Amino acid sequence: MLDSQLQTLSTQAQSLFTDSQILAADTAGVTRGSYSDKETETIVLLEKFAADNGLVSRRDEAGNVYFAITEADLDASEIVLIGSHVDSVPQGGNYDGLAGVIAGLVLLTDMKVNDWRCATPTVCVGMRGEESAWFGQTYVGSKAMLGLLSDAALQATHRDTGRTLAEHLADIDANMDKITNKVPLIDKARIRQFLELHIEQGPVLINLELPAAVVTGIRGNIRHRTVSCRGEGGHSGAVPRYLRKDAVFAFSDLVSSLDEHWQTIEQHGGDLVVTVGIAHTDSRHDAMSRVPGEFDFSFEARSQSDATLDALHALMRSECETIARKRKVTFAFDDPVRSAPAVLCPDIMEGLQAASVAEGFSDEAVASGAGHDAAIFANAGVPTGMVFVRNRNGSHNPDEAMELDDFMAGYQIMRRYLKDLA
Amino acid sequence: MLDSQLQTLSTQAQSLFTDSQILAADTAGVTRGSYSDKETETIVLLEKFAADNGLVSRRDEAGNVYFAITEADLDASEIVLIGSHVDSVPQGGNYDGLAGVIAGLVLLTDMKVNDWRCATPTVCVGMRGEESAWFGQTYVGSKAMLGLLSDAALQATHRDTGRTLAEHLADIDANMDKITNKVPLIDKARIRQFLELHIEQGPVLINLELPAAVVTGIRGNIRHRTVSCRGEGGHSGAVPRYLRKDAVFAFSDLVSSLDEHWQTIEQHGGDLVVTVGIAHTDSRHDAMSRVPGEFDFSFEARSQSDATLDALHALMRSECETIARKRKVTFAFDDPVRSAPAVLCPDIMEGLQAASVAEGFSDEAVASGAGHDAAIFANAGVPTGMVFVRNRNGSHNPDEAMELDDFMAGYQIMRRYLKDLA
Repeated sequence: MLDSQLQTLSTQAQSLFTDSQILAADTAGVTRGSYSDKETETIVLLEKFAADNGLVSRRDEAGNVYFAITEADLDASEIVLIGSHVDSVPQGGNYDGLAGVIAGLVLLTDMKVNDWRCATPTVCVGMRGEESAWFGQTYVGSKAMLGLLSDAALQATHRDTGRTLAEHLADIDANMDKITNKVPLIDKARIRQFLELHIEQGPVLINLELPAAVVTGIRGNIRHRTVSCRGEGGHSGAVPRYLRKDAVFAFSDLVSSLDEHWQTIEQHGGDLVVTVGIAHTDSRHDAMSRVPGEFDFSFEARSQSDATLDALHALMRSECETIARKRKVTFAFDDPVRSAPAVLCPDIMEGLQAASVAEGFSDEAVASGAGHDAAIFANAGVPTGMVFVRNRNGSHNPDEAMELDDFMAGYQIMRRYLKDLA
Repeated sequence: MLDSQLQTLSTQAQSLFTDSQILAADTAGVTRGSYSDKETETIVLLEKFAADNGLVSRRDEAGNVYFAITEADLDASEIVLIGSHVDSVPQGGNYDGLAGVIAGLVLLTDMKVNDWRCATPTVCVGMRGEESAWFGQTYVGSKAMLGLLSDAALQATHRDTGRTLAEHLADIDANMDKITNKVPLIDKARIRQFLELHIEQGPVLINLELPAAVVTGIRGNIRHRTVSCRGEGGHSGAVPRYLRKDAVFAFSDLVSSLDEHWQTIEQHGGDLVVTVGIAHTDSRHDAMSRVPGEFDFSFEARSQSDATLDALHALMRSECETIARKRKVTFAFDDPVRSAPAVLCPDIMEGLQAASVAEGFSDEAVASGAGHDAAIFANAGVPTGMVFVRNRNGSHNPDEAMELDDFMAGYQIMRRYLKDLA
């Protein structure tokens, strides 16, 4: 049961979630495109809530929005920054990102109404453009904030409009001079800590029966968009086993060996997930009665450890060589794309775990498989912590389902942590 | 080196192949559709060759064509029937089917010019509609001939015209009364033996460096057009190993176990090939970063032994149950389609092997993986034999490549066999 203070905050949070949902309601789920009007309108809605509750707000030169109790807090030389992103994928859920922004707004309201403060001025941030679904670029808002947006990212085009990210940024009157020249829009030395509450995008908390949990780190990844296995087509009845160059059997050999390595690495305590999300014979040639000479597939490994990613990638390449000899096929790889794991601050993690226990929850901590704005802050050297909230049906789909009580559990962990922060 | 008799026959065969190719030349390969004008025109071309060489010809009530030295031979109470099919797949090669018809014509010419006869009157047959590419039905001509064409086959529609096989048969003035009522167009008791020369559709003879070889039997098969493996999609970074329901890993488990069973069966002398020709994740959902919850694939096993097919099929079903438990997925199977193996006549096989050795070739015999009209005759109880001719690049494609010298080697084996037939 929530106490009456929490109950009031919970009701406010619910009303913000509902208003945001109505604002951007799609035929299924919500659609708040990166740098879209809906994203801007959602920020306006949050700004109105802040004003109605006696909070102040300000946008930066990339359209990200900050909230605080006073203007002085927004300009303080040291702040605790709390937030997440406002945008969603097409027909996504209402909580992926927005939960972290609303948690920050609830926190400021809580402080103001119940008259308490964190030792360090607290600022809530709502960031834009985190989802790669729109421009094929992740973390646009937080990267722009820290002067990290690459030229390539600025030239990336929108999936629907075909216009560049630079053009879309210009549309919202972003400071293209600063962004293009990689001038940070906030001095990161001012950020004592960055905290992000986010729904978990997997089923681990459901499985552990935990409403919320502290995050240990954010997995990095290594990916091949396309690995091409080539053997030789042939009449299925007429090519005997010893003359086959079967790309499907070769692929299965590879997956089986990846599975064994994955199992071994996990048994030795390593953090790893391996995914072959796209895999297919060539539809121009394949037939029930044709030995498949072509098989293409994607490869992705994620881990909190760069060394584990390197090891698995090397193992995969060497397994492919073995299989190529055995099955008389070839494997061709496109250039691997890497994203570095993010190490979250151990002190913050411990503090959040202690807060969780103090609030009557578990001290269990889980890894984040998906990437988050928090990774950008952590890899820029800002001490960073994260809290996950339980969520059903995964994310990036309209069926995403966070219970408000679970959200409040995550919120309580963060509040307790901030109250205890010296 | 061929002797001068064979050289003359070889030249005639070459000229028939060339004329047939010119007649039905496609932008790539040849296209002689089942019951198409090109198929009819090719039969007319063969009939003209027969007439020019003093042979007689006659068509049956399904459009199949017979050739002999005399009208009396066509009506003889006992005949040796030699031939194959006239049609090809779209953009196929010139020899798949036609080689066996031309071998029969060359044989009749040989007998007439060089004045020898087989102990039994010899009839050459050119059959129509063997390829399933056009109506999804195999062996239409030979089945009609033996009164075996099913109602379902007659209602099958043409891939391009959309009209039924029955309508296409009516177009060539076939006797629809007899065919529909499954009245045989030839009394099979008259056929003492059926012999078919055909190009090998696989690489075995190339690998064995044999120009031609006797066939041991024709593999039957069991097929599932679609097996559907269903697990659960999810964010690739956020779903840990122990919570995954990964359809691609489950599929790979299955292929690996099929591979082991296949190897074991072969090591114990069993005849088997296993093919997964079509396999793919669901393109509506799949992504590099999504745990694949769906994987569909085809399954085909071929063997000369029905028992081996049954055993492998049962093994596959039981492996799927094991994998379903281990990977938390399901497998759904469409109805299996079976085609019975055809046992070729051991006496004919031995006779052909002896003839092969007598002609200076090997006594090696190979299995036919692909199906042939010969299977229809064999399974109808007609003593049947087959000779394969070496062929490069497989069949059912424009690159199919039979050397005329290899054709003549196969021809010599059949001629010697017939000369020796009491």
